[in-house]
Amino acid sequence: MSFDGLLSDKTAYCESVMEKWLPTVDGLAGTDRYAAVVVDAMQYSVLAGGKRLRPLFLHETCSMYGGRKELAEPLMAALEMIHNYSLVHDDMPAMDNDEYRRGRKTTWVVYGEGMAVLAGDALLNFAYETALKAFDLCENAQETANVVSAVKLLARNAGIYGMVGGQCADLEAEKNPAGTQEEGLWYIHKHKTACMIESGFVIGAMLAGAPEEDLNKLDRIAENIGIAFQIQDDILDVTGDSKELGKLTGSDEKDGKVTYVTMHGLEKAAADVRRLSEEALQLYDSLSASNDFLRELIVRMITRTK
Amino acid sequence: MSFDGLLSDKTAYCESVMEKWLPTVDGLAGTDRYAAVVVDAMQYSVLAGGKRLRPLFLHETCSMYGGRKELAEPLMAALEMIHNYSLVHDDMPAMDNDEYRRGRKTTWVVYGEGMAVLAGDALLNFAYETALKAFDLCENAQETANVVSAVKLLARNAGIYGMVGGQCADLEAEKNPAGTQEEGLWYIHKHKTACMIESGFVIGAMLAGAPEEDLNKLDRIAENIGIAFQIQDDILDVTGDSKELGKLTGSDEKDGKVTYVTMHGLEKAAADVRRLSEEALQLYDSLSASNDFLRELIVRMITRTK
Repeated sequence: MSFDGLLSDKTAYCESVMEKWLPTVDGLAGTDRYAAVVVDAMQYSVLAGGKRLRPLFLHETCSMYGGRKELAEPLMAALEMIHNYSLVHDDMPAMDNDEYRRGRKTTWVVYGEGMAVLAGDALLNFAYETALKAFDLCENAQETANVVSAVKLLARNAGIYGMVGGQCADLEAEKNPAGTQEEGLWYIHKHKTACMIESGFVIGAMLAGAPEEDLNKLDRIAENIGIAFQIQDDILDVTGDSKELGKLTGSDEKDGKVTYVTMHGLEKAAADVRRLSEEALQLYDSLSASNDFLRELIVRMITRTK
Repeated sequence: MSFDGLLSDKTAYCESVMEKWLPTVDGLAGTDRYAAVVVDAMQYSVLAGGKRLRPLFLHETCSMYGGRKELAEPLMAALEMIHNYSLVHDDMPAMDNDEYRRGRKTTWVVYGEGMAVLAGDALLNFAYETALKAFDLCENAQETANVVSAVKLLARNAGIYGMVGGQCADLEAEKNPAGTQEEGLWYIHKHKTACMIESGFVIGAMLAGAPEEDLNKLDRIAENIGIAFQIQDDILDVTGDSKELGKLTGSDEKDGKVTYVTMHGLEKAAADVRRLSEEALQLYDSLSASNDFLRELIVRMITRTK
């Protein structure tokens, strides 16, 4: 099958994993129906399309090291729920104040700000409820130990030493664009974007019992990819087609936002994306296992034009 | 030692547990200092006093069944972090719009709305990071299994089948007070308040390996206490001294909020608090272990006047 055919099938699989593990309004029994609105908002937020890259990475590194697909599923769903909760909260007026995402109204616009806060909270919490269900699927003590490591990494990369730390720095930088330096911007990209990509790469391999050396390499590969991905995002904000991107181009500049591009210019930004990508692929080729689909996905992701 | 002396010592111990497990700004190394503001907001929100009832319950039921104090600590801290994240988000303008709590400005007033969203997210996520550290303290497979059950229960009671479900129903009820019926109000009290009390009672006993029958009884005891506690809160809103309570009395009526008291009157509300309490104490006395301090704490909590 062609890469595009495979990608389409695998993305559909990730989508089915989200549908399987998310709660549904129809599934609420008895008085649990009082939670219907927040469950509806969770569905609205998560099942809005998207590339499902993080769960896809997790699935691919798990299968690359011979891991069990069943064991990866709750972690795939949990990671994507965490990604989506962060979008729901980020879109709110107190944060980025975005009314549209992927061509649809954002959660706070549809459900109100109070319910959007709750929907984000519900997704973050349900991510852990879901991840913990992996313990029920363990067949031996080694798998249980792997799940403990996986859920711990998921939590660390989502919190103050990961994504939330990046969001905090981002919010502070927006208040003071002039004071934002290279180190701070790098910190934001690493923590706000790369940490969740790292969770995808490392958790999958961890569940499959990959060697420690490979876990460390995957962590560095994902860091490079995550940062390259974010710089590419900043490049596309300047050069891209707003219709293809699903958001207004030039919006960063309009918002007075400091990005890698406003700091270093398009040329250096593009050169750094290439350098980070080459380093990532070199490391990738030194892993003890291989996955051609995942390699091609990395290449395409970095060179994407939308 | 007198009950008051014991309570004071034990509350101080719970406070020290929070201080031990919360991240500190001074503890942030290297580039992690970019997360300083959100960590500062977490500290501000959690270390604002409070009765620490939930971790205290957890500690007491754990020791009542001969459990290890060390193993309970990360769960005590996690439960209180979850309680506090919910307060941070509830206080926001989009939710209850409260500017003061326990006589201090609320988190969003001090740090801004965006940072308050993040501080709540950070606390919820760090609660799981902290709870998962209990795995590092397990000495055998049975303890590991107990921790798995404990973290799962923590997550369930915090989420859409627990506290978040209650908050969703509460938010909907506020939009439509006239449509709020007895069942809905009961659901809100059970989920918004009682579920987190249940986590305290049941997780402690679970970590200590208490018999299944006792776990079920503790769950029902905590449900009764939690609902009685909430109705007592509604009663005190009408009859209490605003200085002692730290908030304006009569504020529910002013807000046009439906409470158990506005629905049934003070007399039936007080009678139901008594009935729920008596049932709880009867069940408590049928447990296979005993803890006189915890029994007295339950009695005082239900008959509190502030």
